[in-house]
Amino acid sequence: MSETLSPVLPDEVDRAARLLLERACDDNISIATAESCTGGLLASLLTDVEGAAHAFERGFVVYSNQAKAELLGIDPELIEGAGPVSEAVARAMAEGALRASEAQIALSVTGFAGRGAPGDEPGLVHFACARTGRETAHREEHFGDVGRGPARIECIRVGLEMLSEAL
Amino acid sequence: MSETLSPVLPDEVDRAARLLLERACDDNISIATAESCTGGLLASLLTDVEGAAHAFERGFVVYSNQAKAELLGIDPELIEGAGPVSEAVARAMAEGALRASEAQIALSVTGFAGRGAPGDEPGLVHFACARTGRETAHREEHFGDVGRGPARIECIRVGLEMLSEAL
Repeated sequence: MSETLSPVLPDEVDRAARLLLERACDDNISIATAESCTGGLLASLLTDVEGAAHAFERGFVVYSNQAKAELLGIDPELIEGAGPVSEAVARAMAEGALRASEAQIALSVTGFAGRGAPGDEPGLVHFACARTGRETAHREEHFGDVGRGPARIECIRVGLEMLSEAL
Repeated sequence: MSETLSPVLPDEVDRAARLLLERACDDNISIATAESCTGGLLASLLTDVEGAAHAFERGFVVYSNQAKAELLGIDPELIEGAGPVSEAVARAMAEGALRASEAQIALSVTGFAGRGAPGDEPGLVHFACARTGRETAHREEHFGDVGRGPARIECIRVGLEMLSEAL
């Protein structure tokens, strides 16, 4: 089976995104994202609902470690020490995105959607969700070696769940 | 016909993305994006090719005007004066993304993928592509009132063409 780019998102993911954005609009809350392995897919979903786009404030696609450090103000030694796919970096990404934006809620995703380098666990993904004045939430998922497309869809699903919980 | 989120990308767009990333890898060139109306869709495509991900350096999803100004160093008066969907802002976004990244090529997209506000031309999109040491290229497209999904696909197609020309 060949890998396909831009996986088709299941209907319930679309519905979850719409619902989330409507709630965010109602509550006058705006959202920021900091994505590594999903590479902007979550942001593109959150800007794809006509009339609810203003609930999305900005997104950071921080694929390289240098981008994580520079755009989100993460200490390069933390990335070096804990590794870019870790709870510590996921938390730092979400909190950094909150600081570096005007949003009230920021979600981060960092993981190995594909095979990664030897020694990396395929499908290991860390998520964090930061909201002003609250404890930052964290989730660690093990999606397994399901392929890049399906892993990214699972990432979107978990990301939307965490954003929804934070609202 | 209802609007669908995350449009399925045609095969030739997938192929164009793969080809582009392979060429970028061969030439040791890295790419940055600054997206408004496509909201990270181009970045997500450019990070979805196994083994070629390092050709993508970072992406900015600058949906709000404030994000455009803060992340890409664009003068707010330029955005105010020319409007966020304009040649001047597209050029400033691409050149700002080049400055604010480690990439050698940066592409920007700003437009009205959906209906926009009254007075906005549906489907009007400005693109710019900046490469270190070269003149910044610009394209203006009028996709018409084709709906958000189809307009975004056309944006991806043009963006990949411009990146390919810059390589």
